[in-house]
Amino acid sequence: MGIADPYVAAVRDAVARALAEDLAPLGDITSALLPVDATAVADFIPRSPGVLAGTTCATEAFAQLDASVDVSWAAVDGDAVVAGEVIGTVSGSMASILTAERTALNFLCHLSGVASLTRRFADAAATGGDARVWDTRKTTPGLRTLEKAAVRAGGAVNHRGNLSEWVMFKDNHLALLGISEAVASARATWPGKLVHVEAADLDQLAQALEAGADAVLLDNMTPEEAKAAVDLADEWAGEHGGRRPLLECSGGITIETAGAYAASGVDLLSTSQITQSAPALDIGLDIR
Amino acid sequence: MGIADPYVAAVRDAVARALAEDLAPLGDITSALLPVDATAVADFIPRSPGVLAGTTCATEAFAQLDASVDVSWAAVDGDAVVAGEVIGTVSGSMASILTAERTALNFLCHLSGVASLTRRFADAAATGGDARVWDTRKTTPGLRTLEKAAVRAGGAVNHRGNLSEWVMFKDNHLALLGISEAVASARATWPGKLVHVEAADLDQLAQALEAGADAVLLDNMTPEEAKAAVDLADEWAGEHGGRRPLLECSGGITIETAGAYAASGVDLLSTSQITQSAPALDIGLDIR
Amino acid sequence: MGIADPYVAAVRDAVARALAEDLAPLGDITSALLPVDATAVADFIPRSPGVLAGTTCATEAFAQLDASVDVSWAAVDGDAVVAGEVIGTVSGSMASILTAERTALNFLCHLSGVASLTRRFADAAATGGDARVWDTRKTTPGLRTLEKAAVRAGGAVNHRGNLSEWVMFKDNHLALLGISEAVASARATWPGKLVHVEAADLDQLAQALEAGADAVLLDNMTPEEAKAAVDLADEWAGEHGGRRPLLECSGGITIETAGAYAASGVDLLSTSQITQSAPALDIGLDIR
Amino acid sequence: MGIADPYVAAVRDAVARALAEDLAPLGDITSALLPVDATAVADFIPRSPGVLAGTTCATEAFAQLDASVDVSWAAVDGDAVVAGEVIGTVSGSMASILTAERTALNFLCHLSGVASLTRRFADAAATGGDARVWDTRKTTPGLRTLEKAAVRAGGAVNHRGNLSEWVMFKDNHLALLGISEAVASARATWPGKLVHVEAADLDQLAQALEAGADAVLLDNMTPEEAKAAVDLADEWAGEHGGRRPLLECSGGITIETAGAYAASGVDLLSTSQITQSAPALDIGLDIR
Amino acid sequence: MGIADPYVAAVRDAVARALAEDLAPLGDITSALLPVDATAVADFIPRSPGVLAGTTCATEAFAQLDASVDVSWAAVDGDAVVAGEVIGTVSGSMASILTAERTALNFLCHLSGVASLTRRFADAAATGGDARVWDTRKTTPGLRTLEKAAVRAGGAVNHRGNLSEWVMFKDNHLALLGISEAVASARATWPGKLVHVEAADLDQLAQALEAGADAVLLDNMTPEEAKAAVDLADEWAGEHGGRRPLLECSGGITIETAGAYAASGVDLLSTSQITQSAPALDIGLDIR
Amino acid sequence: MGIADPYVAAVRDAVARALAEDLAPLGDITSALLPVDATAVADFIPRSPGVLAGTTCATEAFAQLDASVDVSWAAVDGDAVVAGEVIGTVSGSMASILTAERTALNFLCHLSGVASLTRRFADAAATGGDARVWDTRKTTPGLRTLEKAAVRAGGAVNHRGNLSEWVMFKDNHLALLGISEAVASARATWPGKLVHVEAADLDQLAQALEAGADAVLLDNMTPEEAKAAVDLADEWAGEHGGRRPLLECSGGITIETAGAYAASGVDLLSTSQITQSAPALDIGLDIR
Repeated sequence: MGIADPYVAAVRDAVARALAEDLAPLGDITSALLPVDATAVADFIPRSPGVLAGTTCATEAFAQLDASVDVSWAAVDGDAVVAGEVIGTVSGSMASILTAERTALNFLCHLSGVASLTRRFADAAATGGDARVWDTRKTTPGLRTLEKAAVRAGGAVNHRGNLSEWVMFKDNHLALLGISEAVASARATWPGKLVHVEAADLDQLAQALEAGADAVLLDNMTPEEAKAAVDLADEWAGEHGGRRPLLECSGGITIETAGAYAASGVDLLSTSQITQSAPALDIGLDIR
Repeated sequence: MGIADPYVAAVRDAVARALAEDLAPLGDITSALLPVDATAVADFIPRSPGVLAGTTCATEAFAQLDASVDVSWAAVDGDAVVAGEVIGTVSGSMASILTAERTALNFLCHLSGVASLTRRFADAAATGGDARVWDTRKTTPGLRTLEKAAVRAGGAVNHRGNLSEWVMFKDNHLALLGISEAVASARATWPGKLVHVEAADLDQLAQALEAGADAVLLDNMTPEEAKAAVDLADEWAGEHGGRRPLLECSGGITIETAGAYAASGVDLLSTSQITQSAPALDIGLDIR
Repeated sequence: MGIADPYVAAVRDAVARALAEDLAPLGDITSALLPVDATAVADFIPRSPGVLAGTTCATEAFAQLDASVDVSWAAVDGDAVVAGEVIGTVSGSMASILTAERTALNFLCHLSGVASLTRRFADAAATGGDARVWDTRKTTPGLRTLEKAAVRAGGAVNHRGNLSEWVMFKDNHLALLGISEAVASARATWPGKLVHVEAADLDQLAQALEAGADAVLLDNMTPEEAKAAVDLADEWAGEHGGRRPLLECSGGITIETAGAYAASGVDLLSTSQITQSAPALDIGLDIR
Repeated sequence: MGIADPYVAAVRDAVARALAEDLAPLGDITSALLPVDATAVADFIPRSPGVLAGTTCATEAFAQLDASVDVSWAAVDGDAVVAGEVIGTVSGSMASILTAERTALNFLCHLSGVASLTRRFADAAATGGDARVWDTRKTTPGLRTLEKAAVRAGGAVNHRGNLSEWVMFKDNHLALLGISEAVASARATWPGKLVHVEAADLDQLAQALEAGADAVLLDNMTPEEAKAAVDLADEWAGEHGGRRPLLECSGGITIETAGAYAASGVDLLSTSQITQSAPALDIGLDIR
Repeated sequence: MGIADPYVAAVRDAVARALAEDLAPLGDITSALLPVDATAVADFIPRSPGVLAGTTCATEAFAQLDASVDVSWAAVDGDAVVAGEVIGTVSGSMASILTAERTALNFLCHLSGVASLTRRFADAAATGGDARVWDTRKTTPGLRTLEKAAVRAGGAVNHRGNLSEWVMFKDNHLALLGISEAVASARATWPGKLVHVEAADLDQLAQALEAGADAVLLDNMTPEEAKAAVDLADEWAGEHGGRRPLLECSGGITIETAGAYAASGVDLLSTSQITQSAPALDIGLDIR
Repeated sequence: MGIADPYVAAVRDAVARALAEDLAPLGDITSALLPVDATAVADFIPRSPGVLAGTTCATEAFAQLDASVDVSWAAVDGDAVVAGEVIGTVSGSMASILTAERTALNFLCHLSGVASLTRRFADAAATGGDARVWDTRKTTPGLRTLEKAAVRAGGAVNHRGNLSEWVMFKDNHLALLGISEAVASARATWPGKLVHVEAADLDQLAQALEAGADAVLLDNMTPEEAKAAVDLADEWAGEHGGRRPLLECSGGITIETAGAYAASGVDLLSTSQITQSAPALDIGLDIR
């Protein structure tokens, strides 16, 4: 159980659902035509460089289908992989390997795709400063746990996992409540919950600081505007002491701009691209 | 129930799972702070042009959370949408709308992303000929039904839905069985199932034709090689009568190459990109 | 994983559901009164001759209840069994054996009943020709995967597994669409899907041949009418080349008539009896 | 909620599972080709006489697929139906009707088959005396609740529903425990639970009476042996007062023998045939 | 499989659900920070005396999370435990132990709480006579199977497990049906089912005896009234022979009154307190 | 959707599971004997004073069983209720009302029990100061969402909902990591997550303050020790600025001591009693 691993029940359920999708109602009718005693050894080999994620899902796919298939890995989630080098090996019944192959790879390629794009964002941010890349709740329905683990494998960190984890006031909430009332209400109702406030400009940031927000989302600011926000928050913290609220830039973060945003001194750069728009990493399973 | 709609139980289950991901254990703790009688009207508005898919999922997300929220659509799955134009409207409890918003959009943006990229492939293919774009089993785990419907909304067609739908012999099967024995075995064991054979070159195509395959996957051929394969198959069909087997090009199909492949005269161009690597279409839900 | 086996997840789920039916809420309150260390060896013994199916389900029932119970088989699915001869043996905790016994037998007796009746149909058909017996979608709700595997164990073959596997136009569809338009629409929308057309007489068969159907259901024809249909289709194929469409007789197929229908030269004889009306094969579990 | 109805959640779950079996992954690809605005009215019409059961399942199948389809019934579960007379009517979208038709009929035909065979057993028993026909735990896996309701619709009554409902000592239990110790142990551990004891002969019956069993299974007795058992039990009850234990004949009950067994004066005649070996009642859904 | 054990599938499902509650969406984010190779040995130690129950649930919690964690027990369900003495030991990965700890303890403490309070009621009843303590259907939603097993571990016995196990006429049913008609109807419709009748006074008891009820609930009677009821029923049984119907006192049973009620000679004392209002037994898991 | 409501899917699932527990396999066999057209009106009436919770669950129980039953409430979750006064009313089919009654009440009585005990803790704390009562993860397996909502209805607030919501270092974690390293690691790995540290004494509190913890659990301190801890933390905050970390007292909080602990000036008083050991509130459903 390392930081980049998803928890086991999430893996088990997602794999069971995926196998059902691919096998019902008759199973693999092609592999059923193979000699029943045919065996094989097959290697997972990336076709492009990237960052590995999803190995526990791939292992689980074979285990659920046929516990006698052996799966071993030469790399772990979070490792950079290169095209053409073996990263894992499967051995056992040929029919079982061919039957579970696609399910295993669908997880492995999608999640490694997420980790790979995340790594590119993280590397880009690192050219500018210490800001971490933050994911969002814009995840693929049904795969949030697995994608968030892939984000960690890629070197970024996880924003709130769901609507119940912390309080986050966006423009629509604030239009009804006002910033200071909103924060006060959250503190009273949900002590112990982080209170996160969206700010469209420095004035709203000042209100959020005054209200005692734990984190502020700087919405659609340029790197320069973000820098001004950082200065304002630093100044405020200097005067009032304590930890500066977390500052998040949201909107406009791309691989091209991430360095500049990081250089502004904010803590976190959030992007939905890494979970919603990551192309699959092409990994094959080659029978020896 | 139109051709582009997924079947209703698949929508119901996927949405229930996605809402659970986002709400457990406490629900939306931010919206719980809003006045209970606050209402809103909000519009779905694309930020970029694309092709719509997933509207039934979005509708279902609101319905499962709060049946009193009203959802209506100005467009249907498969429609081209333009940036900034309202495509649908939600009205009802402000808290319910904000709570279900992300779940609804996660489906809508992902599936519209699939439909949009599919349409680009389909349009590209149409510049060269009549070949249809074909999806694959390389889908996001848990979302195959929905993604295949989005592919149809985008104007492409569905390859086999799972391992049990038809027989498909790939290189590893054929290495053990041989093409003619493989096809004969499939006909004997699974009459009524389409028999699909992978061919790496014209020699293997000839064997597949001789064996009576219903469809042949031309693996990693150039458009020119595909053209030669078409000629060979046409010649065969001319001599032996009957429908020419379906010819599928697989490998190397991109938006750039799709026209050239279509021009070769094959029937189907398959690509995993449209389901595995489609960036989300950016659609927002704007409170009026 | 042989041709007669159902896929493992279907077995796992069906057995879990069946055990829950029989055990909730308190478990086997009778076996709970037995000495906890009592053990037993018990033999599965048919009371009548038949064809075996469902062994993986029976094994799974004991495994889910108590992994320490050992189950071994002297026969495999598809084997003919005779009354009074041991076909399998269970050993382990007496309480566990008695608790899981009924669940194991309910699967074994029902599925062997399906296989046994199927074998009788298959044998009857074989007296007349090469036509295969085909099952239908008229299966017991919740058991389609298992019953279709039992059908294969009995020596017949599987018709379409569900409504999404292939296109099948019956009279009601054709009344709205017309045969040639229907087939053309299917080819355009679902390339790669087998297109199956119902024909009530030779005229409709001719239309189906002209339209290029892959399979034709000859509805409620006598063996003589079926013979005429075969002749027409053969003639057509002789003129136009290619594989003759699959010809299926449906309606009126019984053990008595199967040979005559097979002699007509059609490819497939479909019957719902083998899945919907097969009496259970009586198999007991006898404690030694 | 009448006596012949299964409880609603069992219906809901079984129907959802059956629809999923028939629709995944793409839905009804044939009906998707119909004009979207085509509507129909269709009648449920038996092809043979029998007893109706399963109407709530059939209704639910349409409701889950398309809530706008209307279903009405001219008969209720338990009614005798005759060939050719309309027993229910469906109206609404043609595509929805054709899509849900098979699922609805699979329940209706199977459960009406159970009810119809049950009625024949019940009628046969009634020719001999007041004994009721009793079902068993030999039911189709996953359908126990529905089949037991169909048994009631057919005019028979339900034996224990599962292993936890009452204590039932069969030969294997008794070999380990002895009859009087077994009954005493059951009374001490599970007061309030009916205690049922198997007896192979009059000696064991006498022991069971002495032990105070609530019910005795007379195993594989002839009607004459059963009569002797009744006499013995009546004599005992005359001497000791109280209700005579229920006497069940098990083994050898057929439609031919049921009257003779009933004439013996026992209370209950149990048979697995009505749930395990009932042929489906042929009911069609005819589009007007 | 002893009398105090719940059946295995109920344990498996309840534990899976509880782990999901505690782990989604990211798993134990604190334990993820521990060194991955840290191991531990930890002891289950009660902080107060009581009766143990729920050990299979605790074992299952670790097994589902990490099969390599070893769990052993020095006591079994039903054992009296004393504060400070080790009752079980867990060893393996530190992170796994800390992650599953709370789930394991939530079952163990709740179910041992039920068993402990049950034991106190059972001991109190034993001071007055042989009456057994009976649980009710007033259980915690979702945990009935486990709580009923804990009740047995505590030394009491199980009332009807659900609404389908036996017939129980309460005042509202009787107001509509009348006692003798009610019992007759139950006998006719559900032979083999125990028939239980509520009686508010001796007159209703007399009617229930006359009607042939198997069990009578004496509603809210004092111990003296219960004694009179026992006398009446004994007298009746003396005159009519057979087993006296079970007599249950319901209402007013407390640890203080249980002895007096038992002394009245009734068979069963039912109380909802043992399942609905049992304080958790405080058990800790102490890392060595 | 108010603050005291659980989210709808949690209610739906828990109620479905509870109804299945009470109805399988045959439904309510007693109510099935009632006249099918009998109707009733029934009132929810508390037998003791307390605080209401669980009304949505009770409503849902009737709705899932029979949508035609009408349920209305004269009080909402969080309201104080008095013995004997009607708090809600159900009307509709007598059989349906009696069938769903127990399931509805099991939720209502348990959750109102939680709310009622919570209110007593909250009121006790309020006599001493502004500290809020905090629940824990020591909840009944499967009911966490519902119990946490009942806690809010009772006037207390929710601690972390699961292991993934925030980082909480207890003694065992700290023994391996050290306080400052632990906090630093949490900040680096999980920015945005609250970091909570257990402190057994003032020295550890000082370390936690130095490390920048967001919250500190004061473990098993007396009110006086807690006061000293508050003083230390206030002093620290005075010197370093910012919000004082949340201070939680854990261990030894009872209704008797809650006021004294609150008077110490800490923010939160956590107790497992309110969820693990709350006696059910006795509420009846009285047919008029």
